Amino acid sequence: MKTAIISVGTEILFGQIVNTNTVYISRQLQLLGFDVLYHHSVGDNYGRLNDLLETTFEDCDLIITTGGLGPTEDDMTKDSIAHVMEDELVQHGPTVEKLRKHSTIMGRKLTPNNIKQAVIPSRSHIFPNDVGSAIGFAVEKNGKHIISMPGPPSEMTHMFDSYVIPYLESFQDSVIYYRILRTYGIGESILETDLLDIIDEQTDPTIATYAKEGECTVRVASKRKTLREAQEAVFETIKQIYDRVGDHIYSDNDEELVSVVGNLLIDKGITISCAESCTGGYFARELTSVPGISKVFDRGIVTYTERAKMEELGVLEETIREHTVYSPEVAGEMARGLWDKTGSDICISVTGVAGPGTEGTDFVPGTAFVGLCYHGKCDVKMIKGRDKDRDWNRHYLVLGMLHMIYELVS
Amino acid sequence: MKTAIISVGTEILFGQIVNTNTVYISRQLQLLGFDVLYHHSVGDNYGRLNDLLETTFEDCDLIITTGGLGPTEDDMTKDSIAHVMEDELVQHGPTVEKLRKHSTIMGRKLTPNNIKQAVIPSRSHIFPNDVGSAIGFAVEKNGKHIISMPGPPSEMTHMFDSYVIPYLESFQDSVIYYRILRTYGIGESILETDLLDIIDEQTDPTIATYAKEGECTVRVASKRKTLREAQEAVFETIKQIYDRVGDHIYSDNDEELVSVVGNLLIDKGITISCAESCTGGYFARELTSVPGISKVFDRGIVTYTERAKMEELGVLEETIREHTVYSPEVAGEMARGLWDKTGSDICISVTGVAGPGTEGTDFVPGTAFVGLCYHGKCDVKMIKGRDKDRDWNRHYLVLGMLHMIYELVS
Repeated sequence: MKTAIISVGTEILFGQIVNTNTVYISRQLQLLGFDVLYHHSVGDNYGRLNDLLETTFEDCDLIITTGGLGPTEDDMTKDSIAHVMEDELVQHGPTVEKLRKHSTIMGRKLTPNNIKQAVIPSRSHIFPNDVGSAIGFAVEKNGKHIISMPGPPSEMTHMFDSYVIPYLESFQDSVIYYRILRTYGIGESILETDLLDIIDEQTDPTIATYAKEGECTVRVASKRKTLREAQEAVFETIKQIYDRVGDHIYSDNDEELVSVVGNLLIDKGITISCAESCTGGYFARELTSVPGISKVFDRGIVTYTERAKMEELGVLEETIREHTVYSPEVAGEMARGLWDKTGSDICISVTGVAGPGTEGTDFVPGTAFVGLCYHGKCDVKMIKGRDKDRDWNRHYLVLGMLHMIYELVS
Repeated sequence: MKTAIISVGTEILFGQIVNTNTVYISRQLQLLGFDVLYHHSVGDNYGRLNDLLETTFEDCDLIITTGGLGPTEDDMTKDSIAHVMEDELVQHGPTVEKLRKHSTIMGRKLTPNNIKQAVIPSRSHIFPNDVGSAIGFAVEKNGKHIISMPGPPSEMTHMFDSYVIPYLESFQDSVIYYRILRTYGIGESILETDLLDIIDEQTDPTIATYAKEGECTVRVASKRKTLREAQEAVFETIKQIYDRVGDHIYSDNDEELVSVVGNLLIDKGITISCAESCTGGYFARELTSVPGISKVFDRGIVTYTERAKMEELGVLEETIREHTVYSPEVAGEMARGLWDKTGSDICISVTGVAGPGTEGTDFVPGTAFVGLCYHGKCDVKMIKGRDKDRDWNRHYLVLGMLHMIYELVS
């Protein structure tokens, strides 16, 4: 069913609030197998909302609105919907009663604008509001449907989950299933090129690639009669993708690399410490964002000065003098020194150029050397910079470090 | 000027990403005095994007698009804009050159879909992309304008601030000047109450308060004939605000607390080291995000285990046994031990409960003890948790630590 979501409220157009309602509804609709063609936001403006509803019905069968159901003058979603659906607004008796009771309890008078929240199009199917005052409703005209919900996210999500989903399920004769694969070390255009024939050949499952910061994701989605059929189709396609680019995939269920790595370490009881220079604590911070990591993470040392590198990790002064701190030699001594000190199963180190400048080196900003000691056996690898900003470079280096650990322990 | 923002990308319609681009652009446009009438999101679909652009031009003079400028097949924003604006797509020579150079440096071949990122409508005004590959552009037809920018937020915001704002300013016959004040330690409702009479009394400058994670900002904006008039009005209002809540303001120019603190330390040549437990490197990572901080930041020690606290910082076993690691005593010994080891002017430590659980304590998640040694004189302060999620709690603790340093050195 072709669907649009319309958010009503001038505060959205001002950028005062982030429109999380639309994200929430979109995700739920996708899982229910509805095709969301548009998100629109419009101010509290009768004429523009009328026009938008009418235009949107040109290629959609279902419109879901949020917002503009409140008690104040500028709330006019219902007027607009009644106009477009050729219906009239009436008071909903049980809701008026509920509001009257509530007012009595609160020791207040029921005002006309309170009652406005109980007014709905006469042909409405009602969605109760268990956590607020404004009720929601659905209206149909010639096979086109509008579902209207209040704007406050807590009211909207409760109403959607409890009452709107069951209502929507009655429209559907198919289900969607999808998985998101996450990759490291392959660019979006190469990834797409590698998968192009599968992408072009088949209409279901669909395959779509997305670039994220320093990584790419692949979404595989299938719409079938039953969940089982959709799942089978998705897994079949995932198998084909693994055959092509499996080396780059670290999750087939949309997990962050740091969670995958952190949980592998926790599950296998592999202890870890880190020594950072250019990333300045970024690696430690990422790893300690994983709940339960205290079981295996011993310590992190951020050695920003040469003195700290020597004192904390036993890096030799002559190594720094001969090779500079931006060298595989120093990265190696940092990791080795950390192992001598902690005995953690994995000791990982990093030194390099975070950018924006090159710190007097010939390296592209973002370039660094990573030392990895596993049970005392040390390797050093270079990660090439991409000359982006400092934060991006540091993020990318941490991803690279995590991926080295992933390759070691997975 | 009546404006609409159109976000292009199927991942938005799926609810995979939160549309922060639109929020960002809306806020900026509001400050520039543009009327935003609509936000639309549409998938990577040529026909629907064409229709949407055409319909939107019925009551808007300016459309700003984000997304769909990438190298892959489903990126078709440019085709659609060229169609609607009756223009043809051409290669932009300097960008092709730039991409070719970049490919050579990276040792890769320039593929046809790389070059796609350098293709633009022939009548374009170009917006360079300093942090990515896809360039942006503006096209005009019969007094209607489309501005098109790439979707990744870091690329979009940089392009918008550097190139699109100056371009938009040429449409306006009045100027807007604004400043953003940043505060710590005061909630949004108290802040608004303290300023309510100024907010209500005057129509220009306008004053708006916003809650951010753990802090509040105040935007003071004036729209006048000349920049000078607008600036004077803004500074007059800022003076009034300082009289009321000046103790809480740490920046009158929208600087991050970490930048303010980092630059104070650099300017005054005050050296610093840190010892972290529950924040797991977050403090070190934040501080080292400030360019030039290597002049004063010596080292950070992330002591996650008790053993690491004892070995690295000389915390006594009996102190831990008697008071637990979540205690002012341990925070004090951590800071003192760091001072003994490094002699940094400022040695700051933190230990506490990051959440989500309480780690067997009675503390609200997010509660921690911060030790602050300045030239060997140590104090410990408790920061009360707010029982939010792990990441929020850690962020809030780092803000608290930074603010303690701010109070010491400002």
